[in-house]
Amino acid sequence: MSKAKIIQPRTLKGFRDYLPAQAGPRERVLEIARDVYRSFGFNPIDTPALEYTEILKGKGGEESDKQMYQFTDPGGRDVGMRFDLTVPLARFVAQYAGQIGMPFKRYHMGPVWRGENTQRGRYREFIQCDFDTIGTQSTISDVETILVVYTLFKRLGFERFTLRVNHRGILAGVLEKAGIEGQVGDVLRALDKLAKIGPEKVAEEMKATAGVSDAQAAEILALPQIQGSRAEVLASIGQLVAGNEAGEKGLEVLKAVDEGLRLAGVPEDAMAFDLSIARGLDYYTGIVVETFLDDLPGIGSCCSGGRYDDLASVYTKQLLPGVGASLGVDRLLAAMEELGLIEESFSGAPVLLAYFEKTRGQDYLALAQELREQGLGVELYPDAKKLGAQLKYADRRGHRVAVIVGGDEWDKGTAQVKDLRDGTSQEVARADIPSACKALLAQQ
Amino acid sequence: MSKAKIIQPRTLKGFRDYLPAQAGPRERVLEIARDVYRSFGFNPIDTPALEYTEILKGKGGEESDKQMYQFTDPGGRDVGMRFDLTVPLARFVAQYAGQIGMPFKRYHMGPVWRGENTQRGRYREFIQCDFDTIGTQSTISDVETILVVYTLFKRLGFERFTLRVNHRGILAGVLEKAGIEGQVGDVLRALDKLAKIGPEKVAEEMKATAGVSDAQAAEILALPQIQGSRAEVLASIGQLVAGNEAGEKGLEVLKAVDEGLRLAGVPEDAMAFDLSIARGLDYYTGIVVETFLDDLPGIGSCCSGGRYDDLASVYTKQLLPGVGASLGVDRLLAAMEELGLIEESFSGAPVLLAYFEKTRGQDYLALAQELREQGLGVELYPDAKKLGAQLKYADRRGHRVAVIVGGDEWDKGTAQVKDLRDGTSQEVARADIPSACKALLAQQ
Repeated sequence: MSKAKIIQPRTLKGFRDYLPAQAGPRERVLEIARDVYRSFGFNPIDTPALEYTEILKGKGGEESDKQMYQFTDPGGRDVGMRFDLTVPLARFVAQYAGQIGMPFKRYHMGPVWRGENTQRGRYREFIQCDFDTIGTQSTISDVETILVVYTLFKRLGFERFTLRVNHRGILAGVLEKAGIEGQVGDVLRALDKLAKIGPEKVAEEMKATAGVSDAQAAEILALPQIQGSRAEVLASIGQLVAGNEAGEKGLEVLKAVDEGLRLAGVPEDAMAFDLSIARGLDYYTGIVVETFLDDLPGIGSCCSGGRYDDLASVYTKQLLPGVGASLGVDRLLAAMEELGLIEESFSGAPVLLAYFEKTRGQDYLALAQELREQGLGVELYPDAKKLGAQLKYADRRGHRVAVIVGGDEWDKGTAQVKDLRDGTSQEVARADIPSACKALLAQQ
Repeated sequence: MSKAKIIQPRTLKGFRDYLPAQAGPRERVLEIARDVYRSFGFNPIDTPALEYTEILKGKGGEESDKQMYQFTDPGGRDVGMRFDLTVPLARFVAQYAGQIGMPFKRYHMGPVWRGENTQRGRYREFIQCDFDTIGTQSTISDVETILVVYTLFKRLGFERFTLRVNHRGILAGVLEKAGIEGQVGDVLRALDKLAKIGPEKVAEEMKATAGVSDAQAAEILALPQIQGSRAEVLASIGQLVAGNEAGEKGLEVLKAVDEGLRLAGVPEDAMAFDLSIARGLDYYTGIVVETFLDDLPGIGSCCSGGRYDDLASVYTKQLLPGVGASLGVDRLLAAMEELGLIEESFSGAPVLLAYFEKTRGQDYLALAQELREQGLGVELYPDAKKLGAQLKYADRRGHRVAVIVGGDEWDKGTAQVKDLRDGTSQEVARADIPSACKALLAQQ
């Protein structure tokens, strides 16, 4: 058989592979998220990667339409790859409304695809990890959404982070009281640029696009200035929105969030009210939450969400309000790496059983299985190579412990249990291998 | 704003949604697989859904090429959606050979897409769940591959299943001894139809396509007849392949498998040697394993794999032998449902905390969090509805326990802990809610 030309192995631009050193920590983050979501009563769903283009375009903005991978399938259908998990959720809830019952609490983790410009370090394929409560307007669900995010970040190992919470009603109330209505979107878009272009230019833009007066612009720009303890910010908001229905309703929700988190034992400094959060307000109708790492504020929000009135009116006449949030898995993993929260190397099986005596293959196999039955993750090296090569392998893979049984040890019924971190070894009886390994694994 | 036309919510033909009742059990199967794979030292990887068509077509057969979803991406590249996880593995290992080191043990779980005919109940999107050991020819890895499959099926809750093991060398040896060479593929294709069309027609086909004689056909057809205990089959094989190198090498591997599984404590009847397994032999070069459920033999193999000499010669000059298997997740879930191995309803949080006293929202919230901190999964109903509606919800969601705290109980510092299976309730002190819930959850 003549050898065909070698095809160069490569991935598409904007796509990437996950080697174990990246896939392991990502899997761990998703496991923790799953565990936390479940513990609050969220259940998993999944939807196809491909949907009718009509479905995907129904709800998305112009931006996401442009980024969508679209093609005609072999059956002549116009199809697209999902670009988020929110549009599929809306379609899903509309399709099964009668069957799933309300409230409906779901989480959904899976890849999404966007053919966007990759120059800003963005990828064209990434994992989303969302949870939502659909079909209730209860403030309890607002508070629990925030509590889920707090619990998740604690469980992920972050020590210093802040949930920043705002409510759409506050801004709506202030704008109404200032006599500005109908240009809320323009105001928000300008306000969102505050950090980037400064208050003067924001005021200019608001005057130009939303037609506000100097006094109104000043009033709006005063909002992000309101800072301080939760009680102080709530008091300031109270004065601002007094007498306005939307504003007072928003304040009431924020007060419930404040009290709820306190009763649930969340430390005061883990959550702050922040009226400068404007971006999400364009889509959300109630609370908005963003999550910042105190040690890495520059990377932006790692988990964002909020309440919306109407999830799926494109697909159903049923009004479906909801509240939820989305974990920024990629951003979070980058942060965890920077903060040293990811174990240097990842191995599912922390113990390497060296294969030393060539004729003892079956005995090593049985010993490995014996140790696994004691609850240890054990990898058996498959070839009787030199010990040095096997220990190098263990080092590379990030094994924590090596168990070495040479000819002498087989005869004596013992084993060397080697701490791969400091290189020390101890000889133990065969029956004591599990406890010796477990003692080493328990060390930090 | 005028209301736009409603878009009918629907999925593409051949695609499906997973509601919690399906997504939950699937997630559980994947978790167990992950756990077992890890405990043997396999680590996760991931690769993109999209690859260059050139890459995907490099290794796949004509069949998979035809089924591939292909299109031109916005950058004008010819791309396709992966149709299995083996081609991406081959590309991956070739691409990172220098970086990952050998042996390389990986698992990979993810969706694949095939635009095939959906009439046979097949879907165009399904999960694959593979593990492989690359870069070693060690028989130890062959034995461990079979041991992983055994451990996995035990952990999934199957009581009665059989791993059926064959080796390519046996058939090669028998054919060589019978003077048949070069038409092995034709012989295998015919032999694979044995159950369907019977021995006479298989003999006819072999004579027509592979040009074998009557005597040769009889010799080949005698192979699947060899049945009995493992020792008996090994003895019969010994006679068949005596003096033939390939055959004797295959026998040696099967003997190691026999002894290894026995030493590892696998019961005799969980693994059998079966020379009728022909299908996989076309691709594999060493052992082949298929896994059948004794109670549902008709559904076919739920986990198949084997050893191959050469994973990635399309993408690299490096010779990469390996051994691995792939779990048939969909088939397995269907079987588990049929055998009653899936809990009737799935809820991540087994405890529902009813919301009874409208003014106590924050107290319920705090109590729910208190119970979660005791390690319980607790869903708080978000609205102060009638208890009957909440219990109906709990029933539908599959909660196991309801905790009910009415006005009286708040005053007394107690709670009703309700067993949702038999409807009985007990009143316990607030501090005793966790232990009362845990006692109920521990019941089978």
